[in-house]
Amino acid sequence: MPIINGPRLMDDLHRLAEFGRYKTGVHRPTYSKIDMEARHWLAHRMSEAGLEPTIDGIGTVIGRSGKAGPRLLVGSHVETQPYSGWLDGAMGVLYGLELARAFAEDAATADLAIDVGAWADEEGYYGSLLGSRSFCGEITESDIDAAENKIDGKKLREALDEAGLSGRAREHLDPKRYVGYLEAHVEQGDTLDNSGLRLGIVTGIVGINLYRLTFHGQQNHAGTTRMAVRKDAGVALVRLAAAIDKRFPEVAGPRSVWTTGRITLDPGAPSVIPGMAEMLFQFRDVEPERLAVMERALEALVAEANAQGPCRTVLETISKNPPHAMSDRFQDALEWAAERHAPKLHQRLPSAAGHDAQVFARHIPAGMLFVPSIGGVSHHYTEDTKEADIVLGCQAFADGAERILRRAA
Amino acid sequence: MPIINGPRLMDDLHRLAEFGRYKTGVHRPTYSKIDMEARHWLAHRMSEAGLEPTIDGIGTVIGRSGKAGPRLLVGSHVETQPYSGWLDGAMGVLYGLELARAFAEDAATADLAIDVGAWADEEGYYGSLLGSRSFCGEITESDIDAAENKIDGKKLREALDEAGLSGRAREHLDPKRYVGYLEAHVEQGDTLDNSGLRLGIVTGIVGINLYRLTFHGQQNHAGTTRMAVRKDAGVALVRLAAAIDKRFPEVAGPRSVWTTGRITLDPGAPSVIPGMAEMLFQFRDVEPERLAVMERALEALVAEANAQGPCRTVLETISKNPPHAMSDRFQDALEWAAERHAPKLHQRLPSAAGHDAQVFARHIPAGMLFVPSIGGVSHHYTEDTKEADIVLGCQAFADGAERILRRAA
Repeated sequence: MPIINGPRLMDDLHRLAEFGRYKTGVHRPTYSKIDMEARHWLAHRMSEAGLEPTIDGIGTVIGRSGKAGPRLLVGSHVETQPYSGWLDGAMGVLYGLELARAFAEDAATADLAIDVGAWADEEGYYGSLLGSRSFCGEITESDIDAAENKIDGKKLREALDEAGLSGRAREHLDPKRYVGYLEAHVEQGDTLDNSGLRLGIVTGIVGINLYRLTFHGQQNHAGTTRMAVRKDAGVALVRLAAAIDKRFPEVAGPRSVWTTGRITLDPGAPSVIPGMAEMLFQFRDVEPERLAVMERALEALVAEANAQGPCRTVLETISKNPPHAMSDRFQDALEWAAERHAPKLHQRLPSAAGHDAQVFARHIPAGMLFVPSIGGVSHHYTEDTKEADIVLGCQAFADGAERILRRAA
Repeated sequence: MPIINGPRLMDDLHRLAEFGRYKTGVHRPTYSKIDMEARHWLAHRMSEAGLEPTIDGIGTVIGRSGKAGPRLLVGSHVETQPYSGWLDGAMGVLYGLELARAFAEDAATADLAIDVGAWADEEGYYGSLLGSRSFCGEITESDIDAAENKIDGKKLREALDEAGLSGRAREHLDPKRYVGYLEAHVEQGDTLDNSGLRLGIVTGIVGINLYRLTFHGQQNHAGTTRMAVRKDAGVALVRLAAAIDKRFPEVAGPRSVWTTGRITLDPGAPSVIPGMAEMLFQFRDVEPERLAVMERALEALVAEANAQGPCRTVLETISKNPPHAMSDRFQDALEWAAERHAPKLHQRLPSAAGHDAQVFARHIPAGMLFVPSIGGVSHHYTEDTKEADIVLGCQAFADGAERILRRAA
């Protein structure tokens, strides 16, 4: 059995968290200067671990093993949400790096190959799961031409150019090369932490529907326009958002979630009735049927709003990521390893967050392992996991990976 | 009787609208480069009209007459709301300029003095009615130190410096110099236009209460945080805004208005539960008692929200401008002139918008005349008034001003 080196893993995690440190977390947006420094540091660490590193044309860092195999591809991502946590993504990548080292150091596993990937922009500044989808051949050059930063509107081409990546080739998955794909991640929810569990075996990844709702009214003076004749786009937005707040608990499943992440009123001045308003709304569930029910409920609320007037509401789908199941064989192997290192302190659960593993699941068998998030906190700089859980998780992950590789051999 | 020159007035209005033209309207924020160019143009036109112009340390343009008097102060403002109308403010200033010229050109009125003012930042980028309050001695140097742009946070001192105004003295009202203050303005509502009326005599100006509401929740991952444990600041905001939408029609008066002009969710990303949210909310009425009732209703809704949880809501008063009555004598004079030029096609009405006249009303007698706004459109680039109404309004305004000056003599 490969023995992972806990202090070495923790040192790498702490070093990576220095790139863009913010309070107890990290601010490392995709292709920012500090993000690119982190990618170059990672490539260097891969090289020291005996892997052959490449930073490709979309910013993905992949370190390939020279071993004959069989091979597993292991990875996650290194950029972060704005002012967010230090483990989200980073831990899964460094688990991969530690597995590559631990497997090489144990004569019994030295023949097994671990390739490690840090897929660019999993956090979706410029698109949805951009790096893993590029790697899996799901992104065209025209997609890249069209993509822009969701926050500041910067063109992806411009960002790649500034990051020194333009002109580089994009690496692509050879499905025959791998037994499958494995990813470890912090749970980002409180299911494990609340129940005192130490490991989670992911059964599948929820689907995410993301919509833009725009409200078209009439901009006017906030003093002189009588209430009776107003077409206030902001009021239209508030009414629809309140209707969602009331209706969705009735149509949602027990693990469904829905969120309005952004609201904009135009022009946004205190004495002007908003003529336009916009909100970004998303919901998630692991069952395709439930997603369809929620979509129909949203469409019905928009239709009711338009029947009522006086503003016009437009519902636009930004993206739909369907749910993805993880490989049953990989779940069995990870559960076996979890039982070995944390007897009875593990459970199978769906992932309520999107992950690169869902992209790979469309091409090769994929599996995921979760470690607990303290208090379920995620996408915030206070996100954290106990060191003992981080180290235990990596060892279980290594044992699970070996079992998958041996059974494939 | 002074005879105003309609084509000259219209030429000046069209020329001023060139500064910052946007579609059929104007974008001329206070102290922007184009706003300062407009102020210098105006000072030049005042000089040509025989007035002695000054651009003072807050950006107010005042042109003083050398005549013995009696004297009236006539004015309004020249900056605009973002991407807004061409007449709002500008028309009142150029009515003043036309009055100064017309009075000088008629031997029968050549002794009467008209001083003309364009009060800086009536539109409130940096404060409430900044220029007129500065002129009336209501603004201290510390107020100026503290003020910043409500939209982009720029310090007022920095803006004044960039506009070339730092170091200039601020001009101040000498109450003994004037019989009173007169201001003409587009109605900005649809009361006159809907009834086919051509002139409105303002009885008083509504009070405006402006509040900031902040909602404090817990930022978290929009996928992994179960609905039951969320503290979504955006949801808290939507619930309070929806409660206002439901409650205010029950407590408001027949002419009360209330508006949520801006909403911000923090951090504003589609996959992050907002940890903070903010809205700017204002209401207006001409009766102090009604304003108090609405404030109590708002406080009660905030208290209910805090009792309910799970987020914390904080209500903060940004500003309160009390209602102000216009001089009865000035109303009588303006009504006499209105009846002369538009028999039976005028009415007395309150102003639902704030105006510099309310500041002057605290120091000297003040009056206001309205011309119709087509369709009641205001604070939008499609704002407009028929040319015949603009010219008729200026003539009635001139006759009303002469009557006021003669009765004071």
